Amino acid sequence: MNQALHRMLNPKSIAVVGASEKMNYGGRLMKNMLAQGYEGKLYPVNPSSKEIFGVPCYASLEDITAEIDLAVIIVKAELVESLLAQCEAKKVGSVLIITAGFREAGTEAGEQREQMLTAWSARTGIPICGPNCLGLSSSTAHMWASSASSIGENKRIGGSVGLISHSGATAFGPLLNRANDYGVGYRYIVSTGNEASVSMTQFADFMLDDPEVKAVGLFIEGIKDGRAFAELADKALKLGKPIITLKIGESAVGQKAAASHTASMTGDQQVFDAFCRQKGILAAKDYDEFIALVKSSEYSKPLTGRKFAVLSHSGGIGGFVGDKMGAAELIVPQLQADTVARIDALLTGFGTANNPLDLSGTMQTEQILDIHAALESESELNGIVYATHGKGPLTERLGALDRSSNKPLYWLWTGSLEDPELQAVKKLPVPLFFNPKQLASTLARLVEFYERSSAAASSEVEARATGKLSDTALNTFKSQTEGLTLTEIEGKQVLQSVGISVPTHYYLPVNGDIASFLPSVPFDGNRYVAKLVSRTITHKSDSGGVALNLREPEQVRDFFERRIQQGADSGDVDGMLLEEMVGDKVELILGSTNDPIFGPVVLIGLGGVLTELFQLVTWRVAPFDRMEAKRMLGEIKGLLKYLQGFRNTPETDMDALLQTLETFSYWVYEQRDEIESVEINPLAVLPKGEGVKALDCVITLKPVSLE
Amino acid sequence: MNQALHRMLNPKSIAVVGASEKMNYGGRLMKNMLAQGYEGKLYPVNPSSKEIFGVPCYASLEDITAEIDLAVIIVKAELVESLLAQCEAKKVGSVLIITAGFREAGTEAGEQREQMLTAWSARTGIPICGPNCLGLSSSTAHMWASSASSIGENKRIGGSVGLISHSGATAFGPLLNRANDYGVGYRYIVSTGNEASVSMTQFADFMLDDPEVKAVGLFIEGIKDGRAFAELADKALKLGKPIITLKIGESAVGQKAAASHTASMTGDQQVFDAFCRQKGILAAKDYDEFIALVKSSEYSKPLTGRKFAVLSHSGGIGGFVGDKMGAAELIVPQLQADTVARIDALLTGFGTANNPLDLSGTMQTEQILDIHAALESESELNGIVYATHGKGPLTERLGALDRSSNKPLYWLWTGSLEDPELQAVKKLPVPLFFNPKQLASTLARLVEFYERSSAAASSEVEARATGKLSDTALNTFKSQTEGLTLTEIEGKQVLQSVGISVPTHYYLPVNGDIASFLPSVPFDGNRYVAKLVSRTITHKSDSGGVALNLREPEQVRDFFERRIQQGADSGDVDGMLLEEMVGDKVELILGSTNDPIFGPVVLIGLGGVLTELFQLVTWRVAPFDRMEAKRMLGEIKGLLKYLQGFRNTPETDMDALLQTLETFSYWVYEQRDEIESVEINPLAVLPKGEGVKALDCVITLKPVSLE
Repeated sequence: MNQALHRMLNPKSIAVVGASEKMNYGGRLMKNMLAQGYEGKLYPVNPSSKEIFGVPCYASLEDITAEIDLAVIIVKAELVESLLAQCEAKKVGSVLIITAGFREAGTEAGEQREQMLTAWSARTGIPICGPNCLGLSSSTAHMWASSASSIGENKRIGGSVGLISHSGATAFGPLLNRANDYGVGYRYIVSTGNEASVSMTQFADFMLDDPEVKAVGLFIEGIKDGRAFAELADKALKLGKPIITLKIGESAVGQKAAASHTASMTGDQQVFDAFCRQKGILAAKDYDEFIALVKSSEYSKPLTGRKFAVLSHSGGIGGFVGDKMGAAELIVPQLQADTVARIDALLTGFGTANNPLDLSGTMQTEQILDIHAALESESELNGIVYATHGKGPLTERLGALDRSSNKPLYWLWTGSLEDPELQAVKKLPVPLFFNPKQLASTLARLVEFYERSSAAASSEVEARATGKLSDTALNTFKSQTEGLTLTEIEGKQVLQSVGISVPTHYYLPVNGDIASFLPSVPFDGNRYVAKLVSRTITHKSDSGGVALNLREPEQVRDFFERRIQQGADSGDVDGMLLEEMVGDKVELILGSTNDPIFGPVVLIGLGGVLTELFQLVTWRVAPFDRMEAKRMLGEIKGLLKYLQGFRNTPETDMDALLQTLETFSYWVYEQRDEIESVEINPLAVLPKGEGVKALDCVITLKPVSLE
Repeated sequence: MNQALHRMLNPKSIAVVGASEKMNYGGRLMKNMLAQGYEGKLYPVNPSSKEIFGVPCYASLEDITAEIDLAVIIVKAELVESLLAQCEAKKVGSVLIITAGFREAGTEAGEQREQMLTAWSARTGIPICGPNCLGLSSSTAHMWASSASSIGENKRIGGSVGLISHSGATAFGPLLNRANDYGVGYRYIVSTGNEASVSMTQFADFMLDDPEVKAVGLFIEGIKDGRAFAELADKALKLGKPIITLKIGESAVGQKAAASHTASMTGDQQVFDAFCRQKGILAAKDYDEFIALVKSSEYSKPLTGRKFAVLSHSGGIGGFVGDKMGAAELIVPQLQADTVARIDALLTGFGTANNPLDLSGTMQTEQILDIHAALESESELNGIVYATHGKGPLTERLGALDRSSNKPLYWLWTGSLEDPELQAVKKLPVPLFFNPKQLASTLARLVEFYERSSAAASSEVEARATGKLSDTALNTFKSQTEGLTLTEIEGKQVLQSVGISVPTHYYLPVNGDIASFLPSVPFDGNRYVAKLVSRTITHKSDSGGVALNLREPEQVRDFFERRIQQGADSGDVDGMLLEEMVGDKVELILGSTNDPIFGPVVLIGLGGVLTELFQLVTWRVAPFDRMEAKRMLGEIKGLLKYLQGFRNTPETDMDALLQTLETFSYWVYEQRDEIESVEINPLAVLPKGEGVKALDCVITLKPVSLE
């Protein structure tokens, strides 16, 4: 596949079937190709023209004798099938279908046409980009096979970031235009359209393998295969190449719009956001944020820590930038005394050598070189931020500094966007920003990315046993279970079998003998909770099916006779579960659902009624390891502090909790074909050394598992 | 004052003492004045020049015979005092002191000089802007009395927004440059420096009174008088003129930087944010957000609701914009069937008439006028957003539309910032955006502003009794109290006297007679809690000083004898409080502190140990009314739902809670000279009709009140 995609994205020869001189899709594509100076062979195909914009034109694809790397198809949807036959006969390397009128049309004919494309590509092994897209570009070959009206005649600049978009007008519109405004370009731009053959994930996988690609940017209307996307993200993290996303679907409006636009599911935004945090994906929320991340990925040296010096010509500006950096949990540290002294001696007139440094007029003098050198010699600093406008000499000086500097540089431009001086700054290989808060949040995210990336590169996660966990209990119940939901006692046996602790417990079926049961229970000082077990009664505490604080055999007998046996007639009651009560604990909720996009997703949060109201919860895509589990807990403000012992509560067993989370996540992942959802509520986290215990659980199996 | 400030900001004649042709502060100010074309009389003063940049120069201020509206002083700090004597003799209208070397120097001499300025201005009634500032501008007179190096020779555009800044380099730097980039200017720009005489709040008050000013923008390093600022905000809200802020102090870095920069306190960011929400202040977090609010305040027609149509040439772009609008709680509604039909008939080729509207190529045609007309006729819509680039004709069409439209228009520019077409768009009287999320959040905040503003204009808040509340109890305790903290029983008496309910209770001093006390308590079925009352034992439940669920006289006697009387020897125990226990309730925390900037600030949140960990709390500056109290509760996600009855909990007495919040806020406000802090924890909110009750309280009085 990747060999074929290489021909598609770096074609030495292109046929454009449906080329034209009119300003329709075919004409605009030809115009863009010519204006941007494609360096390969170009063969317009149109039976009614001898030449198109001066390029000799062919009556049909078959008339071209040369090899074709990329066939671009811009004809009526009805004609596409016969053209593909010609493509196959000619053994073209790849196909781009701009034409609309496929699945997105919502018609039977459109759907059939799309299936034909998918089948054709699978059979021939020739990849298709599209249909219903705006095309693609590859900047190294100056190849702009795109029908977008906005590309224009100004030469578009190249870069090392690949851009793949579900919305062609967004890629070849604001994301291209704004990149230009920041002085950065893309190595590739791909508008994937309906993805009848090659998906966004496959294009991205190809680009990650390209040694010239430093990062991949995605405009997403909906993710179709969350697992493939997760693998892509893992690969990117190991390669140290950021994935930058801009995704529609934060609100119902967007979800509806995306659905009407490319018929994708946009997925649950909270799960997607958690997924991005988990996988080190840089999820932007706005155009400029996306571009700032693109330019930083292109040009930033790796950031190895959070400590920055901030230099400005103004204390007010430097202070504001430092303020936003502090709010983003970056550090603007006090400089060492000798550095301060060195810089103080270089300041002409006003200014202060305290970080953020207010250099006043010294910013525009040659002294900036020596001040920078002083900052470079501070080994604690991880990066240097210049917040200023600047005349030509400063730009030249910073450009030279960046090439020699052992620390990454960042420039916040405080001048007008129309200042002619900005043009030179845009051309520097230095990440460029126009807003302090955006600068701060971008740097914070880059730091986190590089942290995660270096951890991923050296990670032992894959050493984790990938064989199925030993849950023989689950297999047992699958065949015994008539309904889909396991009873509490069944669920707990399953949890135990995979290594998740439950309280010491005893079970008596509804027709069991209470008299011979009671002597088997050690009552000496223990407190018990007795619970009604039923496959159909779901709210057992509401219906008097729970008795707490039982210390005597007689209390248990009483509960069994009054609550369990009396309900036996109805056939709803299975028996009685008697459990040792646990003491001091923090109550959490731990659950999983089978997300339609990402598969098993694990939820953890504060347990009890308030969870639902105040939503002190967070998510992860399964599986994940203990380190990720700890990050997960850290996302719920206050929770780690609570678990570490707060006020009168003892420190809890964090080790056991992290282990339980890891085990749980692997279990629901490996049993994803059998388990629909799990809810352990509460999961009791006991004092240090005492472990965690699932006090209640509801496991729901998938219907398909009940063969 | 305002008459004098009018002369300062709209001077017909200006003397510049310290004018120069060198590129120092005096030279740059002269250059800016001349380059921007000041229309009044300009008198440079410098004993060693005959003329400055061709303008005749005077040896001293006294040599000028004409009347001087504004004297600009740019001389050594040591010379300022004698110059002020000349200003007084000449009866100048106002003074601007650019010179540094005052309080900000951190020296004794600097401090004394600043006090001299303050005293001089107070005595003469002549206002001073500065010292240690970059100057001021007034665009209608083309008056740019500023030493900023960044103003340049391009004519700066004017506007209707007043800008006042603690950082001169920020005002005359990014906030001016970026405004220019958005096609908006300022009516006034004032760099206030050390504010020895006129504060930011006073300048803002003057500007609000100017009928030509539509909004006031503030760059704040620290608020000195929160109460004056609150009055300013109230005035702005009534006038319907937004206050837009950008404030340093989100993190310790910024707080430190601001302190070193102008020696201001930046205050607690959470309190400031709550204050802004309360007062309808539009608090921006970044330069571009500030400018977007400035341009919208200048040009938006009032927004009366949340429903918008979104038009784009691309479904992907329109969908993304709609998505962000939905996430900001704006509505992108389905259009009425006849509107859809009308628009469908106008679409040429591709596109869809569903909102967000994907107009494809029709965007650039004349049909856009009829499509706009169709949207205008939808009475439900409150505004129309165009998300597109656009060639000249579209710009002209939209410009014409805006003038005739009965609905406000907004433009999201998706082209490059360097497109020549943008220049015409910038000149349109239409708010301009470059990022969908920023557009959405700005519109959402404008909607809220106009809602609050129209409520404030018609509000009866001022009718609230402003006389002191009848808290005779507080007065009693003040004279009796030796320490600063009231005991629980004292505190509850105070609360009762101001109308805040407490449980039915009985009190027995430590030396009282339990035998004659018990018969006075109605035990028939009631449950009681007994508490130790002490001025010194603060954690009474930790020390066994609380007994719950008492139903029998003997239980009370036992508690009194074992817990109260046994501790009596130490002298720490005052007595026993016996209270009726309340049933179903939601437990909140209600408190107040005396903020150094804003005075009494009220906190409400979820009660109990989890409050502190998970910080489910919010703030308001006292006093506030019931409506504001309801908004306050709404800020804590999930709380209103909880209070309205969730799962097994009954609906609570929201009326009583809102009344209590209003009463509490007026009480702590009116007693701000006596009360240091109050904590009611828990405040029990009982089922509907049963009110709220303060179950515990700690009231701490200010030391000064203990005369």
